[in-house]
Amino acid sequence: MRLSRYYLPVLKETPAEASIVSHQLMLRAGLVRQASAGIYAWLPLGLKVLKNIEAVVRAEMNRAGAVEVLMPTIQSADLWRESGRYDDYGQEMLRITDRHDRDMLFGPTNEEMITDLFRRDVRSYKDLPLNLYHIQWKFRDEVRPRFGVMRGREFSMKDAYSFDLDEAGARASYEAMFAAYLRTFARLGLRGIPVRADTGPIGGDLSHEFHILADTGESALFYDKALEDIASETMRDVMPGDPIIETLQNIYAMEEGQHDPEACPVDAASLSTKRGIEVGHIFFFGTKYSDAMGAKVQGPDGGEVPVQMGSYGIGVSRLVGGIIEASHDDEGIIWPEAITPFHVGIINLRRGDADVDGASEGLEADLERAGLEVLYDDRDERAGVKFGSMDLIGLPYQVTIGPRGLKDGVFEVKTRATGEKQTLSPDETRNFITQAFR
Amino acid sequence: MRLSRYYLPVLKETPAEASIVSHQLMLRAGLVRQASAGIYAWLPLGLKVLKNIEAVVRAEMNRAGAVEVLMPTIQSADLWRESGRYDDYGQEMLRITDRHDRDMLFGPTNEEMITDLFRRDVRSYKDLPLNLYHIQWKFRDEVRPRFGVMRGREFSMKDAYSFDLDEAGARASYEAMFAAYLRTFARLGLRGIPVRADTGPIGGDLSHEFHILADTGESALFYDKALEDIASETMRDVMPGDPIIETLQNIYAMEEGQHDPEACPVDAASLSTKRGIEVGHIFFFGTKYSDAMGAKVQGPDGGEVPVQMGSYGIGVSRLVGGIIEASHDDEGIIWPEAITPFHVGIINLRRGDADVDGASEGLEADLERAGLEVLYDDRDERAGVKFGSMDLIGLPYQVTIGPRGLKDGVFEVKTRATGEKQTLSPDETRNFITQAFR
Repeated sequence: MRLSRYYLPVLKETPAEASIVSHQLMLRAGLVRQASAGIYAWLPLGLKVLKNIEAVVRAEMNRAGAVEVLMPTIQSADLWRESGRYDDYGQEMLRITDRHDRDMLFGPTNEEMITDLFRRDVRSYKDLPLNLYHIQWKFRDEVRPRFGVMRGREFSMKDAYSFDLDEAGARASYEAMFAAYLRTFARLGLRGIPVRADTGPIGGDLSHEFHILADTGESALFYDKALEDIASETMRDVMPGDPIIETLQNIYAMEEGQHDPEACPVDAASLSTKRGIEVGHIFFFGTKYSDAMGAKVQGPDGGEVPVQMGSYGIGVSRLVGGIIEASHDDEGIIWPEAITPFHVGIINLRRGDADVDGASEGLEADLERAGLEVLYDDRDERAGVKFGSMDLIGLPYQVTIGPRGLKDGVFEVKTRATGEKQTLSPDETRNFITQAFR
Repeated sequence: MRLSRYYLPVLKETPAEASIVSHQLMLRAGLVRQASAGIYAWLPLGLKVLKNIEAVVRAEMNRAGAVEVLMPTIQSADLWRESGRYDDYGQEMLRITDRHDRDMLFGPTNEEMITDLFRRDVRSYKDLPLNLYHIQWKFRDEVRPRFGVMRGREFSMKDAYSFDLDEAGARASYEAMFAAYLRTFARLGLRGIPVRADTGPIGGDLSHEFHILADTGESALFYDKALEDIASETMRDVMPGDPIIETLQNIYAMEEGQHDPEACPVDAASLSTKRGIEVGHIFFFGTKYSDAMGAKVQGPDGGEVPVQMGSYGIGVSRLVGGIIEASHDDEGIIWPEAITPFHVGIINLRRGDADVDGASEGLEADLERAGLEVLYDDRDERAGVKFGSMDLIGLPYQVTIGPRGLKDGVFEVKTRATGEKQTLSPDETRNFITQAFR
């Protein structure tokens, strides 16, 4: 992509409205713009990151056997009256009246709707287990939206819903999702920290949140010091049945609402307290919704039983902010390779110089042929502006091409995360970068 | 994908709620379920088609130089007060009050929001031309939603917005989108019929609708008989500057609101009247929004001028229904190859028979290795049920594998569109199908 034909409005100044670094950088790097309080428009670079995160989440959901659907944003209040949550939910629910005076709402989550879809079409235990998920925009009317996309009102969430004949099956589904979450975060380059959590308005008695550790996190976490090392060992393909799952579920690790200092079995010297950004939340709630809404299947013995359910959320848009909190420096963002909007940036130091233009365009074409996404800064701007933008937007590799290097037949290749610079020939540059993404 | 692990709830009966064939087939083939009046949940098979259509639309937008963004669904009423449309829009606009009593709305279109984004970040003619698009769910509170996704309330639309320094540039942008629309519909296997149209609440003085001809279409079209043949010639890569664009824009072709029988220059014998399904609508409206909202750029002479704009919609979710209206038979849907949810279906006639299972799984693996998407019916169901489902869901090719054929080392391969059946060896089957999608 040529930057001259792209839309990347970077800001020199840090906007006063942004108090945390991810919010500042998302505005400065031209990833998002606020449309209203807690509601954001995604500009091209931000949308690419969002879609890359979606792709990782989708791949691990599919691998776990979940099947993708797409439920609408607007729901009927009647469904929520069936479960009893219409009155419980409070002011966070965006309530709407349509032109025929019917009560509607913008879905904050989809337990009711998926239970309704299930009860209409599924009749038999032979169709189980079943896990349906979607990636859709939700709305929660936060009283004080803040921290950019980290606590917005309109946000993208992946939510999956499992259906099983009995509790043992449902607990196996829960474990399959627990494993899929560890894999998802590992692929995103993140160490996911699972803690026991309140079930809140979703309900049920078994629930884990997955956090990224960050000083700007909203939740206080209390856990056995050994947890962080164990979580580091999940940076691989954890599949259901892996003993690390049981280890993680048994070690003391509580979200603040669950932590009772009096009853804590871990002594003070072994207890860690850190702040976390919640990026996932999973629930087993059995028959809470299937009982209330009559979602039953015929079992092997012919009798009808309410289906056992769980739900599993990942904050897709929130992850964009969370990843930046975990991966940035003074110059800007440092994207993990798995979700970077472009793999490499090319900086042309003298646009209009036939040799420099030719070398830049040649490298762009070579890297694109190798299947990489390239952002080529072909603008008529000062070198300092180009370097600053490139550092700010955080692509993993930068190649600078100018008349001086070209005299010696070399480019300058910078690795964004380390700042390391190498002087490489065009062939070496191509090999170095394509190898990095193999 | 194994059907036993998929979610494909097909219906034997035609639901009474559905009056047109696309709606009936979308319900029967398990593509969608109605969640509320005019609001649909997309089941796995329907979502795959929707995404395939999105991918075609996106590819042609990108090829035309448009850049993808994603604006939120919920908008502030204040933006619409600036343009004057908040009061004009009427009851189709879903109006919402948030917890702080601010007036919001669920966007029916995005001219105001994109103009706001533009005015905040773009200052100079050097950043033009610019075309930003998104694919997002919209809401129009139709008084009587009907025909399934063809006239739903929550619907997916691709809407693009062009920004140019002057009217000549804006007309070139309009032509680029006109060409992109012809390419998009051609790639979808559809003959797009462009007609002059009312600009309605969008405004402006130049506008074309693109229709698919169908008896169930809501609009009456009046056009010179020669138009259909000319439209047939657009089933190729039409690029800006192609003379067929001018031909199409100059031939008499009017949506009913524009057609004046008294003033019609075409004599009755040469005039055709048919019904059409509107699948695209493009507008040039100049400075209507930029004047009202102060979206100005600095021109080459240093003076500030309001930017010239156009907007360009494609009904993405509506196209699913439109394509089915145009491509089905008594047995069910016939998907065009470009958007089919799976390329091929495999029917196992005797599940549990080691030879049949092995041959079915072998073909599945071979075709998937060739990059094709395969739906393998491995269910424990009667042959008649499997044949009926496969015809209903309309995959282009079906391969039936049973013990009788296997004795002779052959499969039966059916082409859905023609009904033609061939008896082929496994190797011939693989070659025939992979060639079909080359």
